[in-house]
Amino acid sequence: MNPSHAALKSANLQDVRQTIRDGRYRGHTAGLCPGRLQANLVILPEIYALDFMRFCQRNPRACPLVGVSDTGSPRIETLGEFDLRTDLPAYNIYRDGALADSVTDLRGLWRNDLVAFALGCSFTFETALREAGIGLWHIENDRTVPMFRSTIRARPAGPFAGPMVVSMRTIPAARVPDARAISARFPHAHGAPVHAGDPARIGIADLARPDWGDAAPLPKDHVPVFWACGVTPQAAIAAARPTLCITHKPGHMLITDIPDGVEALDILDFDPADTTQQESTA
Amino acid sequence: MNPSHAALKSANLQDVRQTIRDGRYRGHTAGLCPGRLQANLVILPEIYALDFMRFCQRNPRACPLVGVSDTGSPRIETLGEFDLRTDLPAYNIYRDGALADSVTDLRGLWRNDLVAFALGCSFTFETALREAGIGLWHIENDRTVPMFRSTIRARPAGPFAGPMVVSMRTIPAARVPDARAISARFPHAHGAPVHAGDPARIGIADLARPDWGDAAPLPKDHVPVFWACGVTPQAAIAAARPTLCITHKPGHMLITDIPDGVEALDILDFDPADTTQQESTA
Repeated sequence: MNPSHAALKSANLQDVRQTIRDGRYRGHTAGLCPGRLQANLVILPEIYALDFMRFCQRNPRACPLVGVSDTGSPRIETLGEFDLRTDLPAYNIYRDGALADSVTDLRGLWRNDLVAFALGCSFTFETALREAGIGLWHIENDRTVPMFRSTIRARPAGPFAGPMVVSMRTIPAARVPDARAISARFPHAHGAPVHAGDPARIGIADLARPDWGDAAPLPKDHVPVFWACGVTPQAAIAAARPTLCITHKPGHMLITDIPDGVEALDILDFDPADTTQQESTA
Repeated sequence: MNPSHAALKSANLQDVRQTIRDGRYRGHTAGLCPGRLQANLVILPEIYALDFMRFCQRNPRACPLVGVSDTGSPRIETLGEFDLRTDLPAYNIYRDGALADSVTDLRGLWRNDLVAFALGCSFTFETALREAGIGLWHIENDRTVPMFRSTIRARPAGPFAGPMVVSMRTIPAARVPDARAISARFPHAHGAPVHAGDPARIGIADLARPDWGDAAPLPKDHVPVFWACGVTPQAAIAAARPTLCITHKPGHMLITDIPDGVEALDILDFDPADTTQQESTA
């Protein structure tokens, strides 16, 4: 019998990864392997890789790059012991910028010229906000966070260009400074909000009509707070129309080996096999 | 008459840049344009650019990438209004990994396939340490900081590989936690130390014999503290032996338009021409 999401929530990293690898779990990864960094995945042919990497470097809030594969390798050794071809529950396949297919395995699609990019995601700071007692409506109500095209322009790189897409969370007015300070500690996971307050200031006409996700209510004494969103690179990829692009299916993330939290950035720089290094910084 | 370093210290960014551009100042940039981010410069042919960018991504403490040019462009628009061909006081030219020349102008060498990388430098955190009352011997005595090859390995990317080179500063034992906390606020400028204490733990046999720079005394009640150093990419480039590599001449840095300090990372993400964006986050 295949495990449910609820059953997997208490499993360890190795068991969750093996279950996904065996094709026995194809659901979303929110709440799985708590304490491990989860990431967005973008895979492109090498001819697009330098421009896409420049796009990420120039738009670090929307595209916080946490790992890059060698060309042709389905591994990102700085992030853990996974195989990108099998260890995510589901993938989207884009051809010429348009969604062409959703699959649960990349073994038949893998090519020697592919480069994989892992980008930090909002799960990281959402966990920290909730631990600080800041409730998040979309999680409590099992919905998708509302996302909007803003009038903030992403900085272009080669064919990659487009609007900054933002996600919106309603925060009690008194907790907005806390929400800002907490999320700022996670630059590898979108960092501080890009705007808090009037949606019109960043070109959003109607909070009730998100471009992606589910509309969220705006309770009294709450403020809409906007973070740069990982859909930004997807919009830029749609504009660039690469012959092939593979991403995680939304919500079905790459689960890495490295600890989630403020220390993640530090650990990105360290070799887990080098005990000298780890001890010397203890 | 050409201005001295002392005279330029009181000049503004535009005047310093124009003086360098006109060929009237070829000295080091330490202390010039206080409050502006200064950066290491590495220029490579595009065929090496993706691997070098992966090397930077995998070694963020040693190679904190703050900007990348479009291929063939001598500008990095995210960092300011400079021309990389003329606006640094001096450059080193490496051919096949070996120093071949030092020049004061790149106009005759520029090619349409070159990609420029700007990497954060230690000036940023050194300023912050001194502002916190932590003295730095090499600055007070007008020497070059001592640098050592460590046994910490940089993570390789393509042909780029080698040791992590570290710089050493002696810090009063009671101020080591402060020095760590202050420098950790600047991940775009090498971040927190990689080691404090026994040099042998990271493979340094003799503090009196640095691999680069000047040996510094170790006063009583002081601790040697080691930071990842911008010479790390230079060592990796020497190993990779690219046909051409152009860098700043040590100490003769790229002076950017953007504010130095903890806010620099935020600003990297913002378009100075977009007032909506700036206002919305005020």
